[in-house]
This record gives sequence, structure tokens and C-alpha cells, in this order.
Amino acid sequence: MAAPDHVSVALLGAGTVGAQVVRLLTERTDDLAARAGAPLKLVGIAVSDIDREREPWIPRDLLTTDADELVTRADIVVELIGGIDPPRRLVHAALASGATVVTGNKALLAAHGPELFDAAAAADANLYYEAAVAGAIPVVYALRESLAGDTVTEVLGIVNGTTNYVLDEMVTKGLTFDQAVADAQALGFAEADPSADVDGHDAAAKAALLASLAFHTRVPLDMVPVEGIRDVTVEEIAAAKEAGFALKLLAVARRSQAPGGISVRVGPTLVPEDHPLASVRGAFNAVVVESEAAGRLMFYGQGAGGAPTASAVLSDVVAAASHVVLGGRAPRESAYAALPILPPANQAVTARFTIEIEDRPGMLATVAGVLAEEGISIDSVRQAPHVEPAEGTDGPRTAHLTITTHRTWEDALATCLTRLADVAGVRAVLTARRIEGV
Amino acid sequence: MAAPDHVSVALLGAGTVGAQVVRLLTERTDDLAARAGAPLKLVGIAVSDIDREREPWIPRDLLTTDADELVTRADIVVELIGGIDPPRRLVHAALASGATVVTGNKALLAAHGPELFDAAAAADANLYYEAAVAGAIPVVYALRESLAGDTVTEVLGIVNGTTNYVLDEMVTKGLTFDQAVADAQALGFAEADPSADVDGHDAAAKAALLASLAFHTRVPLDMVPVEGIRDVTVEEIAAAKEAGFALKLLAVARRSQAPGGISVRVGPTLVPEDHPLASVRGAFNAVVVESEAAGRLMFYGQGAGGAPTASAVLSDVVAAASHVVLGGRAPRESAYAALPILPPANQAVTARFTIEIEDRPGMLATVAGVLAEEGISIDSVRQAPHVEPAEGTDGPRTAHLTITTHRTWEDALATCLTRLADVAGVRAVLTARRIEGV
Repeated sequence: MAAPDHVSVALLGAGTVGAQVVRLLTERTDDLAARAGAPLKLVGIAVSDIDREREPWIPRDLLTTDADELVTRADIVVELIGGIDPPRRLVHAALASGATVVTGNKALLAAHGPELFDAAAAADANLYYEAAVAGAIPVVYALRESLAGDTVTEVLGIVNGTTNYVLDEMVTKGLTFDQAVADAQALGFAEADPSADVDGHDAAAKAALLASLAFHTRVPLDMVPVEGIRDVTVEEIAAAKEAGFALKLLAVARRSQAPGGISVRVGPTLVPEDHPLASVRGAFNAVVVESEAAGRLMFYGQGAGGAPTASAVLSDVVAAASHVVLGGRAPRESAYAALPILPPANQAVTARFTIEIEDRPGMLATVAGVLAEEGISIDSVRQAPHVEPAEGTDGPRTAHLTITTHRTWEDALATCLTRLADVAGVRAVLTARRIEGV
Repeated sequence: MAAPDHVSVALLGAGTVGAQVVRLLTERTDDLAARAGAPLKLVGIAVSDIDREREPWIPRDLLTTDADELVTRADIVVELIGGIDPPRRLVHAALASGATVVTGNKALLAAHGPELFDAAAAADANLYYEAAVAGAIPVVYALRESLAGDTVTEVLGIVNGTTNYVLDEMVTKGLTFDQAVADAQALGFAEADPSADVDGHDAAAKAALLASLAFHTRVPLDMVPVEGIRDVTVEEIAAAKEAGFALKLLAVARRSQAPGGISVRVGPTLVPEDHPLASVRGAFNAVVVESEAAGRLMFYGQGAGGAPTASAVLSDVVAAASHVVLGGRAPRESAYAALPILPPANQAVTARFTIEIEDRPGMLATVAGVLAEEGISIDSVRQAPHVEPAEGTDGPRTAHLTITTHRTWEDALATCLTRLADVAGVRAVLTARRIEGV
């Protein structure tokens, strides 16, 4: 087979990321040709509105509204439209026509990944998605290829920049959640409707993809339990910090032996202050991978934004192009392990929770008794300074009791917290968070 | 071409890393076969002494002393002997016979890389070396492939675990350099003769490889100026910390515009305490890559040790094997840019230095005058509390003057420090360090 004189690239979508992809493709023609083995030629850009004002470097003669036609006439189709439809239909069409697909669409992959991977395999076509997880950070690459000779045991990731920015603002400036979200919106780090970020859904899609890659097992999005950060308070963060923890929204995926399977979840999580994830500031992302031979690895960088995400897209485009030029193919979806995904109740957990109790003799013994009955072993107990009853009330004085557990099970923890709420003298369960990275 | 029923692997060397490679190859047969696309078959292990006692999992019937014969009968040759000869001869022989070579030998690559890359290209063979830089951290991969669509501007790396451990012990335990080295030796982090590590030569070999990869330019080892850490004192580290800096042995590679070219060097360097490299503890390695589109990326992990290095070797073996099975090839040496390598004198630098002066009027004006004459602009000046003359001497009281410069040139800085040493009233130039990451 003679090497082709160029590799054709079709772009679907010309938004923030797409515009940066066009800029890099046109500014760095010679560099990209040297790395790919042949010149990359942009053959079309599918948009919904040809007449909209666009960045000056977008070649207007390449714009088209006929995406279905465009995907049939390129070696590489880059999908940056976002959302499920029409990307799902267009990716299928591109794969069916033998094109390599590069996408940054985590929602599409989390919802319909298996179907798309099957379609790619059936068409003997390649599907790349570095930009779908943690933006510019090459963690898909690392899990797909660099750790191919190793066995991953755990992945902990800060994979949503918006929530990390919000939590960081609460820590460093003492802002409330609402104030910090407003700040993030003003700076463009959060959407007008921030729920996909702050409720953890964006992180959950990435958690499903990371777990699938790390454990060679298809992990459906609806098997990922999610908690967001709306209920996090400045007071909780300050108390955690005093105890030596940072509170981060983490995607957690772990392989366990007994019961054998995969635990995966997203939620506000305590990590020790000397853990590398604790010092990830602002809108940065970071993913810590623990594996049997390599030990602990961390990958850190910008998880979003036009140029960083475009860098990840271009790395996939160059890899795809060199396969067009030289033969070979991308690593296929690796799902040979097919480990069971543990229901939340059967997952192991270490937790730290704070309850408000009446400050009278015997309360600690009662609380400790409930934990013992649920088989939960206590690592440490801390009783905070007394809290006086509100003025004008004559109730007894109260105290805050903070308990850190040893490793236990989610169902035991849930039962325990429910029972504690009903114990006479317990006013409320104030916070309960998982601990990772210890 | 029909897919082969297995991929044959020959191992040269069965030391700390080699033994772990054998363990992973034999323990994970099914996993590796699934990832490579065909079973990996170890066909021989070349050693210098067949009768030496070895780890129980080493198959004795595969041992041979005839490495020259072994390299001609494998699809993949893994070179883990170390040193220049015989590895140089054996790698040439393996490439000439069409085998893919995987090596972790940074000394060989830094000294003879271009010759080996040329040999690989001539034989249409592949050469992998992930394990040669920063052990388990996939930074070769990142620079070779993940950032293929981007333009790297700077690489800052802690790439020698021994020196990072020694400096960390000096910081956290207040040990002297000699005490910390003795500790590192007792724990197996340092060799009996630690000079390759503490004098910076190991880091320099990695700096040359990182700069070559980042800037698509052959960077010979003898163009890398090196300073080690033997002269670092606990007092200097404490003073740096008080000023908001951590002292790290860094490999630095930067692309500059005017004059256009590459700056590369290794030496003890100040980084701001909030820079991600400042918090890299113990024997860990980390590499920060700055690029135009992706922005700042950091890769962190274990840079040495049998199992972590073996993990990197296996990732190369799996990638190589999948090319044997599926076709295609590894990315070739990318040296198309061929940028000039700037001599040290022409490199830009920001510095912080401390001089001991007689404490009398006019000294600061004199010192500042020398800097001005050399065109060096001052960022800040700090005068430390007076130091009394030693008992029994009747000299004048002295002070320590610490000056942080704005960005200047290495030759201007060198001339300035030489001139300052001769100024009447200047007793000594105590320390002078470069600053990075600001």
C-alpha cells in the first residue's frame, strides 16, 4: 500500500473547542505533517448556522450544514458537537464508512459507548476519545496504553474543574457555595445552569469511562452512584482542614478482591492534606492511578477550555493519521475482564461523620454501641467544644461528635447513620463523608 | 498477513528490573495476551553468570550467556543490562535482525541515541525507551504521542529520585548532605558510590532525552551543563524556604525565541513553594510540561525501582507486540525541528544569590552599581541580620545580602558574580541559584 499524499479531516462543530482545533490545524501545518507522516487536510466543518459570526481563522468556504454527507468523505471525523443526538447518528455513519472517529463527547460515550465500540470493531474502524476525560491530561492514553503491562487497582480523580474551583474558592476565600458558584459563572468556569457540574453528573460520566478503561470492563453510567457538592458548607471544610483533610469532589473507581469486583462512585470526599490530590487548586484536574507494579502515578493539568481540550483532540488526530499513513490501528475497547460492578451497598468505605448530640453522660457509650452492633470499628472520636443552646431556649447544651471509622461497608454505614438519627439525645447527623487516599 | 500465534520476547539482563519483567510476563500471561493481541512468549534470558542464585520465578532453562545469538531469534528484544557496552553492540544486532528493541538504558541513549535511531530507521525497526526517563511515569509517551498536536515550550523535571530523597531529608529532618546520603544508602535509594546521582549526571542524561523529545531536536549529552547538589547546605534550604522557595535538583529544557533555540541544563534550582514540583516528596519523580495549547501538565510517580521500571518496560513490550500482531509501527525519532542548542552563556536566567559583605555604609549602592553595569535588573534585595565577627578577630561586622534578579542572561550573571567577588568589602559569594516556575 502506497502512503497517501494527505489525510483528510472533517470537523463536526465549531464551538469553543472546534475553533481551537481549526486554529491548530491551520497554524501548524508543517509540524503536524511531520508528526503524522503526511499533511492533514481539513475538508469540511459541519455547523448548524453558516451565517453566524465566527473566529477570523475559520475558513468560511469549508462550512456546511450537511454533516451526514461530510462524514462520508474524510479519513478522520472529529465530533465536537456535544450531546447525544445528532452525534450518535453521525459517529455511527462515520464508522460505517470506515473513517476513524475522534470525539470529546463524554456524555455520548458514557451513555452509548458499548454500542459505539461494537460498531467500530464491526467496521474495523478506530475510535479515539482522549478529550472526553480530563481535557488536556493524557489519562485515557495512560490507561489504554501506558499501563497495558500493569494491573490498576484504584483510580481517584478530580475530573470536574468547575466544582474544584468552587470548593477551592470556599476554602481560600471563605465564600459560601452560592457565592463561589456565582464567581465561577462570572469567570466562565460554570454554566448559567451549573447542575451538570455541581450535582456530579459530568464527573460521573468520566468516572464510568475511567473505570471502564482501568478495569477492562464495561461500566454503565447508571451503575455510578453520584452525590454533588450543593450541601457542602464553609464550616464543614474548615473542620475537615483542622482535622488534616481537604474536601474534594472525587471520582473513585477501585478493584476489590472480596467481594471481587469494581466499586465506582462520585461524591464529596475527604483526602489527607499531604495527598497529591489535596493541593490541586482552582479549575485544574488531576487523576491518581494506583497500580500493582508502577505504584502511584498522578496526571495533572487543565481539564477543560478550548485550547487545552483541542490539544487532546489533536493528539488523537495525529495518532489516527499516522495509522492511516502507516497502517496498524488504535487499541480497541478493552473489555475482556468483565468484572462485576458492585452495588453501592457492597462497597467498602472509610467514613468520617459528625453528629449533634445532647451533652450528657453516656451519649458516647450509646453511640459507640450502635457502631459496634453494626460491626463498624472506630478509628478516632473527637468531641467539639460545647455549643450553647440558642438564646431564649432552655434545652440542654449540645456537642458535636465526629467519628472516623476504620474500613467498613456502605450498607453497614447507611444503617448505622439511620439508626443514630433515631437515638434519644442525637439531634442530627450533620455531615457524613467518605475518606480516600489514606 | 495472518496474525502470528505468539510474539517472542528475549530479555537481556536479569537484575532488579529484569527479574520483575520476568515476573510480570509469567504471572500475567492472559492479561498481556488480551492486550497485545497474541500471547507473549519469553524465549531466552541473557545473563553473564548462569549459576548465580536468582529469584525463584526465573525459568532456569531460558538462561543463556550467548546474548549475541539470543537477539537474532526474537520479535522483541528487551535490553536491561545497563552501561554502554555490550548493550550498544547488542541493540545494533537486534535492530539489524528486524527485532523491535525496548530499553531502559538512559546512558546508552544519551551517549549514542542518534546512531541507534538511525539504525532503527535503516532497518525499518522500532525502538522504545519509556523506562529510560522517570521510571514508571509515562512521560516519553506523553511527549512522543500525547502532545503530538501541540507545541511544548518548557519541561521542568525532578528526574532523579536519589537526590530528591536527599534534599527532602535535609528539609524535613535537618540532616546534613552527608547524613542524608548515608540514610539514602541504608534504604537502597543511593549507590555505594552516589556520584552519578548527586553530581547530576543521571539527571543530565534524562534532560537530554526529554529535550530531544520535547523539541524534536537531537540534544547531545555534552551540551547539557550540569551542577550537582554536594554544596547544598541545610542553612541554604532553610533560608530559601523562609523566602518562599523549595530547592530541587531540576532538569530544565526550554525553547526560547530570542535568541531562537533550546536551553537545557541540570542543577539545584529554586521553585516557588506553591509550584507543583515543590511538593514532590521523597524519592518520587515529577515532570512538568508547559505547552502552548494544553498549558501546564504534570506527570508524577516512581522514577526508579524494580517493579515500577518493569511496568514501563512492559507497556513498551505490549505496544511493540501489538505492532507485531496488527502492523503499523512506533513513532520514529522525531528530529525534524533541529533547533540550535544555545550555549550556556546565551541562556536566559532568573537568579537569587547571597553574598557576605562588610556591614558599612555604601555597600548596597556599590553592589547595585555592579549589577546595573552588567545590565541586570533587581527584583528584590534582602539584608539578613548582622553576623558578628568570630571571637578573637577584630574585623568589622558583616551582613548577608540576598538579591533576586529579574530575567537576565547567564553570561551577564557569571560576569557579575565574578566582579562582585572582587569588590572591596564583599567577603564571599555564598550561594547563587537559578529560579524556575515563577
